[in-house]
Amino acid sequence: MATQTAPTLADVEAARGRIFDHARATPVYGSETLSRRAGRKVWLKAENLQRTGSFKVRGAVNKLSLLGPEERRAGVIAASAGNHGQAVAWAARELEVNATVFMPQDAPMAKVEATRNYGAQTVLTGTGFDDALSAAADRAHESSATFVHAFDDEAIIAGQGTIGLELADELGEVGTFVLPVGGGGLAAGIAITLRALRPRVRIVGVHAGKTRGGTIADGIAVKHPGTLTMSILDDLLDDLVHVEDEAIAEAITVLLERAKLVVEGAGAASTAALLDGAVGGSGDVCVLLSGGNMDPTMLISVMRHGLTLAGRYLVFRTRIADRPGSLVELLELIAAERGNVVSVEHHREGMEIDVVETEVSLTVITRDSAHCSQLVAALGSRGYTVDRLA
Amino acid sequence: MATQTAPTLADVEAARGRIFDHARATPVYGSETLSRRAGRKVWLKAENLQRTGSFKVRGAVNKLSLLGPEERRAGVIAASAGNHGQAVAWAARELEVNATVFMPQDAPMAKVEATRNYGAQTVLTGTGFDDALSAAADRAHESSATFVHAFDDEAIIAGQGTIGLELADELGEVGTFVLPVGGGGLAAGIAITLRALRPRVRIVGVHAGKTRGGTIADGIAVKHPGTLTMSILDDLLDDLVHVEDEAIAEAITVLLERAKLVVEGAGAASTAALLDGAVGGSGDVCVLLSGGNMDPTMLISVMRHGLTLAGRYLVFRTRIADRPGSLVELLELIAAERGNVVSVEHHREGMEIDVVETEVSLTVITRDSAHCSQLVAALGSRGYTVDRLA
Repeated sequence: MATQTAPTLADVEAARGRIFDHARATPVYGSETLSRRAGRKVWLKAENLQRTGSFKVRGAVNKLSLLGPEERRAGVIAASAGNHGQAVAWAARELEVNATVFMPQDAPMAKVEATRNYGAQTVLTGTGFDDALSAAADRAHESSATFVHAFDDEAIIAGQGTIGLELADELGEVGTFVLPVGGGGLAAGIAITLRALRPRVRIVGVHAGKTRGGTIADGIAVKHPGTLTMSILDDLLDDLVHVEDEAIAEAITVLLERAKLVVEGAGAASTAALLDGAVGGSGDVCVLLSGGNMDPTMLISVMRHGLTLAGRYLVFRTRIADRPGSLVELLELIAAERGNVVSVEHHREGMEIDVVETEVSLTVITRDSAHCSQLVAALGSRGYTVDRLA
Repeated sequence: MATQTAPTLADVEAARGRIFDHARATPVYGSETLSRRAGRKVWLKAENLQRTGSFKVRGAVNKLSLLGPEERRAGVIAASAGNHGQAVAWAARELEVNATVFMPQDAPMAKVEATRNYGAQTVLTGTGFDDALSAAADRAHESSATFVHAFDDEAIIAGQGTIGLELADELGEVGTFVLPVGGGGLAAGIAITLRALRPRVRIVGVHAGKTRGGTIADGIAVKHPGTLTMSILDDLLDDLVHVEDEAIAEAITVLLERAKLVVEGAGAASTAALLDGAVGGSGDVCVLLSGGNMDPTMLISVMRHGLTLAGRYLVFRTRIADRPGSLVELLELIAAERGNVVSVEHHREGMEIDVVETEVSLTVITRDSAHCSQLVAALGSRGYTVDRLA
């Protein structure tokens, strides 16, 4: 790859002209709940409502628009198990270019389907992203098709930077912007733009590293950040902070319940950093919600976790006498405390259970942490042991 | 109450001037997935992104703006366990009027909290909505405060009608509009506006009746629709159709997964009617997503149900030999078929279980209906009984 240089504000403005007919200018919302929790006015840039469900189409349309007629005829190639693949597929259809997207064999079927529905050829190969990447690079090498990198590319960076133009237009009062950082293309493009138009704003990057077993913010858990993007971010970010999955799960739940927006893990990282108190600065703050593509089965797990943390679920184990009526007594007590039982499981075989007792696990919906504690106290005062599982 | 007359387009336009500084002009999105499924271009009017999470603030702000100085000083009263109460509370705060909202004692805590957070006094009374309503009426009668009806009021109808102005501005090509009908204020206001500005459009109302145990579309399960609203709707609707909870659950799931929008039951009824093939007409169609206030624990249940209907969850019971290794064999087979097991439950006490067998219930995440059927077939071909629970 030839040495690349950072795009300028002029490149970003030119990109806006190219993507204008294709990508959406996404809305910005003030959030009362988040403002109350953060102690400062909070604005949400809802890029999860972008076409294909993430910001990636901006860069992809800009990149493909810059190809010459022969390059367009030869088509494009990308490697991605996620948003970038869908964005390249979608941009290629918009601009009538052939696209081939390489994905690992275990890519979620929903993402494979979405990529195909946008008209791209998909190639499922290897066991992880690196296999898909090297297969894509091989194919690009053998053919005359153009490989479209997900972030370390001037045209991609300039495309994502168009979000910065919208932010500068819409949010005159905002002094702090919080941006997720994965490969760095999104944050680099926006930082270039904001630094040029609003030199004194504070810009904070957020990354979510992989913990054991992965992270729910897989969109920003990138093994090798870009050379170009990192040199830009080293220059332009005021701070780069880290958030854990717990905080991200809670942020996803708050955004869903209060802002009515579905936001994926990486997309909620900026909100998580703000709620964690990691952002710094003062005055109005804007958090970028970068995408909303989360598998709904995963979303259910995350919501259950987020709600449990917020005291909205009480999952516990207790013991009751092994005689008729003892379970009814327990359930009547919970009902009197206005807990809503969603599941009851009997266990009669545990090693530690007395022969005249039986063990039950219950999941109860509670209003909030205070209600949850009140219910636990009521159970205790009536002689039940409460072994909280969540 | 004095006899009321239907508001006119001029009333709706005047309402727009009053609410302009308070309510949002909500965005409209084209949805590729819904367009493919409906076989026609589908537009979503995202009123779930309105302040307080529903369209109700439009009517409430208009109504309160029309009060005289003395009426404002005396405050307002509403009865609601849901969106109307929050909207009146919010509008009252915007216009610096005192508000008291009567709710049933078992109103969801989240809604009570939200109403209080907007600054209203809340009175929890009685066991159902009718009790709250009569307590509110009594209080209004005793005091000089103004009772704000949720729908059967000219000013409320005119306020909701401002959505029709936005639709007429934004959607020149759309020939069919689908609106949820509960008390009828929303549909009446929009129908008045669209009939005046775009006389030839098709307007379809959707209601969701209560089935046993209630409905997930509680926002439009109104016992007594308004006299004024119904006379307007009788005149102006082309059709009024009915949707069931199953279809609404599926619509909520599609909107969440594909449009990244959280929509409550009543808010998804219009989408459900479209996917059900109940809407009629041809060409572009716009469905109104009227609100997004759904309890997240309820949302989880709805999503699980919607995903099960879509073949994304397989819940089944089978029997395995009661010896070491038999569960591992079963799980290996499921893994080889790329099913993702999320829960396993052992039952050893069923009446019909052979003494050398044990019963297990499994929940497995599958990609789609085809994958689900393929997994069931693979289990059968290896001799497992499959008793599907969902």
